[in-house]
Amino acid sequence: MFALGNGYIGMRGTHEDMSGEPGSTLEGTYLNGFHETEAIHYPENAYGLARINEFMLNVPNAKCMAVSVDGQRVGLESARIVSYERSLDFRQGVLVRTVEWELDGGKRVRIESRRLVCFGRKHVAAIEYRVTALNFGAALRIEASIDSAVTNMQAGDDPRVGSAITGPALLDDGRETTGRGVIVTQRTRNSGFLLGTGIACAASGVAAITASDCADGRAFEATLAQGETLTVHKYIAYVSSRDVAREEVAPLVRSELDRAVQDGFAALAAEQQAYLADFWAQADVEIEGDDALQQGVRFNQYHLLQSVGRDGKTNIAAKGVTGEGYEGHYFWDTEIYVFPFFLFSKPEIARSLLQYRYAGLPKARERARQMSHTRGALYPWRTIAGEECSAYYPAGTAQYHINADVAYSIRLYLMATGDFDFIAEYGAEIVLETARIWTGIGSYDREGCFCINAVTGPDEYTAVVNNNYYTNAMACMHMAFAASIADRLRSERPEDWKRVAAAIGLDDAEIAAWRAACADMRLPYDEALGIHEQDDSFLSKKPWDFANTPAENYPLLLHYHPLVIYRHQVCKQADVVLALLLLSDEFQIDDKRRDFDFYEKVTTHDSSLSSCIFSIIAAEVGYADKAYQYFLETARLDLDNTHANTQYGVHTAAMAGTWLGVAYGFAGMRLTGGGLRFAPTLPAKWQRYAFRVHVHGGLLEVTVDAGATGYRLLNGEALAFTHHGAPVALSQAEPFKRMESQ
Amino acid sequence: MFALGNGYIGMRGTHEDMSGEPGSTLEGTYLNGFHETEAIHYPENAYGLARINEFMLNVPNAKCMAVSVDGQRVGLESARIVSYERSLDFRQGVLVRTVEWELDGGKRVRIESRRLVCFGRKHVAAIEYRVTALNFGAALRIEASIDSAVTNMQAGDDPRVGSAITGPALLDDGRETTGRGVIVTQRTRNSGFLLGTGIACAASGVAAITASDCADGRAFEATLAQGETLTVHKYIAYVSSRDVAREEVAPLVRSELDRAVQDGFAALAAEQQAYLADFWAQADVEIEGDDALQQGVRFNQYHLLQSVGRDGKTNIAAKGVTGEGYEGHYFWDTEIYVFPFFLFSKPEIARSLLQYRYAGLPKARERARQMSHTRGALYPWRTIAGEECSAYYPAGTAQYHINADVAYSIRLYLMATGDFDFIAEYGAEIVLETARIWTGIGSYDREGCFCINAVTGPDEYTAVVNNNYYTNAMACMHMAFAASIADRLRSERPEDWKRVAAAIGLDDAEIAAWRAACADMRLPYDEALGIHEQDDSFLSKKPWDFANTPAENYPLLLHYHPLVIYRHQVCKQADVVLALLLLSDEFQIDDKRRDFDFYEKVTTHDSSLSSCIFSIIAAEVGYADKAYQYFLETARLDLDNTHANTQYGVHTAAMAGTWLGVAYGFAGMRLTGGGLRFAPTLPAKWQRYAFRVHVHGGLLEVTVDAGATGYRLLNGEALAFTHHGAPVALSQAEPFKRMESQ
Repeated sequence: MFALGNGYIGMRGTHEDMSGEPGSTLEGTYLNGFHETEAIHYPENAYGLARINEFMLNVPNAKCMAVSVDGQRVGLESARIVSYERSLDFRQGVLVRTVEWELDGGKRVRIESRRLVCFGRKHVAAIEYRVTALNFGAALRIEASIDSAVTNMQAGDDPRVGSAITGPALLDDGRETTGRGVIVTQRTRNSGFLLGTGIACAASGVAAITASDCADGRAFEATLAQGETLTVHKYIAYVSSRDVAREEVAPLVRSELDRAVQDGFAALAAEQQAYLADFWAQADVEIEGDDALQQGVRFNQYHLLQSVGRDGKTNIAAKGVTGEGYEGHYFWDTEIYVFPFFLFSKPEIARSLLQYRYAGLPKARERARQMSHTRGALYPWRTIAGEECSAYYPAGTAQYHINADVAYSIRLYLMATGDFDFIAEYGAEIVLETARIWTGIGSYDREGCFCINAVTGPDEYTAVVNNNYYTNAMACMHMAFAASIADRLRSERPEDWKRVAAAIGLDDAEIAAWRAACADMRLPYDEALGIHEQDDSFLSKKPWDFANTPAENYPLLLHYHPLVIYRHQVCKQADVVLALLLLSDEFQIDDKRRDFDFYEKVTTHDSSLSSCIFSIIAAEVGYADKAYQYFLETARLDLDNTHANTQYGVHTAAMAGTWLGVAYGFAGMRLTGGGLRFAPTLPAKWQRYAFRVHVHGGLLEVTVDAGATGYRLLNGEALAFTHHGAPVALSQAEPFKRMESQ
Repeated sequence: MFALGNGYIGMRGTHEDMSGEPGSTLEGTYLNGFHETEAIHYPENAYGLARINEFMLNVPNAKCMAVSVDGQRVGLESARIVSYERSLDFRQGVLVRTVEWELDGGKRVRIESRRLVCFGRKHVAAIEYRVTALNFGAALRIEASIDSAVTNMQAGDDPRVGSAITGPALLDDGRETTGRGVIVTQRTRNSGFLLGTGIACAASGVAAITASDCADGRAFEATLAQGETLTVHKYIAYVSSRDVAREEVAPLVRSELDRAVQDGFAALAAEQQAYLADFWAQADVEIEGDDALQQGVRFNQYHLLQSVGRDGKTNIAAKGVTGEGYEGHYFWDTEIYVFPFFLFSKPEIARSLLQYRYAGLPKARERARQMSHTRGALYPWRTIAGEECSAYYPAGTAQYHINADVAYSIRLYLMATGDFDFIAEYGAEIVLETARIWTGIGSYDREGCFCINAVTGPDEYTAVVNNNYYTNAMACMHMAFAASIADRLRSERPEDWKRVAAAIGLDDAEIAAWRAACADMRLPYDEALGIHEQDDSFLSKKPWDFANTPAENYPLLLHYHPLVIYRHQVCKQADVVLALLLLSDEFQIDDKRRDFDFYEKVTTHDSSLSSCIFSIIAAEVGYADKAYQYFLETARLDLDNTHANTQYGVHTAAMAGTWLGVAYGFAGMRLTGGGLRFAPTLPAKWQRYAFRVHVHGGLLEVTVDAGATGYRLLNGEALAFTHHGAPVALSQAEPFKRMESQ
């Protein structure tokens, strides 16, 4: 919950001074993209299975502090806690903790720590650590060190947690004491990375302080009078050879520490505040009428900002940089859940997420060849550096929709920003290469329908099926978008077109084949029920016996063999219902309602990706209570630990889904080929809510209250959209309009 | 090729005296049913996956012999082979080998070995080893020993070969020298078995022989004059605690060795001959006109006899006891391929195979619970001692048809033998318990059809599909048979009925549900093509591009990701075509021909279980040339190593398929509810063929030549059947009839 991060460094919310104490929770420090690799061993092998796992490593814990009073360690073994408080102000970005200890014998100390991971300095974190002698005068010793003997969690029965390695993964490669701390260098066994972890420490507050080296750190001793405070500032830097050349790792640790020491803790805290002020000015969502939800929404936004990689080489893991669930892998969660949040709140980060995918194209091409596709690129279902890491292909590699999801995010990026330069330079190649997979995997059946067989859609309780509606519909969108990109490039930027087409060997016949496949795409629809079928066979399966499934048997995946789940009509998460959102214009509202009604009954929401989507569609089809209920489940999922696994890391997709729930859900925002539109409703419990979106070059603030919706152009030239179907135009001359509620 | 076995001991055909020589092939000695267990580790776990692998261990090599002349070892390092011959006469059951060596320096010795694994003595094997000084007189030393430092093959890329353990699997538990040899006791690490391996040796042939102990064996030394022969007899016994109590292992080794020594090699060879004379009198297939095929057929029959367990605790592994392919696992191969051969050739062995399944019922019940079936039993797809060992469930646990296959074999047993006592005592409980799975897994669709979803049929290139024709049709047969068994028990043996029904909690409603499911079973049929669909979606898939698949890309499973294979119309093996055989009466001949025509085009026969079935149906539908061609592929599969993997063990199912190809194929034999029938044809190349079948209490000889078919009742009271539809009745009064060919 109190994990800190800056999109690169992630520090779990554990205490500086209680590592290894009885009852202490999992320590963890992670660096986005920094990973080890290990061969995947299958008990029964098959051709083309993912061979190499990339997984996030737990890196040295550089926040360790240890306090002694007259030689007596302050900790649970010989002291008790008198008072305790922690807080994290999302405007400050500093984790504040105050503890009062009473030691055996009665001496009382107060420890105040302030910790930050610098948003503005990728490699740097810092701690201000203040110890006050409350009722005594005595010798105080504070050790500030690095614990480099860390290990990763072990995989157990839950497939969502843990890695295959045991014991320390980082091999020592040298350590250097600097006179104010230490720099530890380590290397990974297989992935060949070098990692530098450094600390630089200084103490102040009393006259006579003795400083000396201690094991992997620096110790400060002073004799405190009653009421006096000894303060230690500890600056931390992590650099790996994934960021810079190997020989620059240690120098960069040193220079980042130098700069931090020179600037001082107060300057870092001020930078932090400035960064966040800018962020909230663009991204803040306000909710009046439900403080718990307000907290949940901002908590989630804050964690997204902390978790997302923004250097074009990293992405956002399912658990951000907060825990080892899913081994630090990136999934489609990025494109379908997280990307829109950043696109509309902090577009430069959205762009860097797309650049990450561009960087992954060569690996995706390799993977396509392994999967017997002679052309095109197939993105990995889960990965860090681009390798397909899914060791259970039915809910991994089989999810070919990842290609369409990436293309969808590029399409949305183009619609929101109009940035065709990006398309010409990066996006087109991604979209075109990944579109080719559909004519590779698909085929025409005897009725002349274009079918996509043996794939898995978003719903992982139904695997390796034919004509998954979501996949087929998204493939249509993808191929049509690819064809339109090709047309536009050809006419607007013939040089770029020539370059891209030549680079990937694309010809007109292939583009024509995409258009034909789109036109003939099989999109399963059941006339009798008037609903879209999740796949060719979903409706023929036996409905799951929910009435006789005890609560403790959820999530089903931990209690039933995959075959048992697969042969039933039961969904882990939104599948058709997600298509209703992403391809919103292709459905009538009655279709959406029938689909929602049907799929709601068979969905367990065992995936944290589900409730937010159901909330949005419920809002759209007029189920205000359900929309609110599903939103509640999403918005405080981690704060209330409703999935009982937040200890393995936060759920970044659900966090982004919360923002989607406000903008797409309650405010009915859609950005489609038909333009931008809103259809705001106000949840009964709320008095007012407001959010902001970057779109079409402007920053728009939307404020909804009981009577009306206010639209204000905060910057930008002009903006046009619809409000419940009625056209609205804002401009610098007329930057605000208030529209009556429906 | 020269492996020996007796259904318990299996010795690969490696030489006694060349273990470890350069270029020597895999040494291996196996004991049917003797296995180690090891946890199966999945890179991504799921509920209910098979947890424990049982795998056959390579046990100590007790056939080792080493010869030295004047201290010079006779072997490839310091000698060359002058002449060499090996032979195995299937009437003798003794592997004979003669080698003449010329040592460096010019001395020549002849080594003649005769080796047998006693058919009549489960635990015993023996070697007669004769060394003759051809052109010299000199000191000769022969060491007869046990090599107990053996290991299993390692698993590699081919999923069909090797195990997960590395290094020696057997831990030493003691060794005892007996004055004529040694008894080595070892134990397994996990499965907790004790193994005793013993040898007892004696030498003869020259006057002065010095005997002494040597490392793990016994050494004999003598000075030979030119032309003299030193003979060593080595008796071997293997006993494990899977056969007897732990404390009886070593005593039984000792007493079996005692008895063998006392009886002597000649007596063992005579026993062997008598056993085989009896076997061939019942089982021999004669073919005139194709010596290579004649050899293939008998080779296969002989290997089946060598491979099959017959103690009710063991079964027949995919590779018999000849190699480590498929880790010594038993599959459905037993019931569908091997069982009919023994049923008609040596019915007491067939019965013991069914008893093995009866012994496995408790484990099969456990497995059914793990698979969320509240009632019934689900047999493991692959196993040794009853545990589900399939580590890739789509081509393992998903093959629910295993239950119907077992029931089918019991039904065939009852039809052939009329042995209802066996049904009452064992068979009914198997059939009823396994039938319950179908109403557990199946469900009614919206059209009121009973569907079986998410299973895999025999064809492993199509996995986890809905309404696999074979599975559904066999489930029908199974449930109908179960209901009829229940009826018959109830009326003929009310006490047995009460006992069985009470033991498993079976009531009339459940039996009624079976009958209803049968009546409503979905059996996919395509009206346009007039063929049975392999499953609901098979015909909608893209046909495999055979034209552009190079020969080296077969078997496909080693060159394409499962998803690539699964999404195409391509079969590894007979699936619908197998149903045409097993449920013969349910199809018209035109149906069979159309099905054959269609499925032949899409089948790779990458499985060795395929060609024999295609041969049989080809014969039935009048494709004589194809029948012969497929028969050729089956009959000499191992002799000619056509699948390029005979080194990992023989293909017992294909071997039995050869017999099926003669009886079911060319002779058109069927035993169904409609009775016994023949419809013999004579392959163009043959002058004559003959085979024998135990059926209805008699032993019938069928002889087919160009003009007619002769039916002779060799023993039994009377027998009635049809010949090309015409009734034939044999009796003691009239034991022979000759029927004109069609």
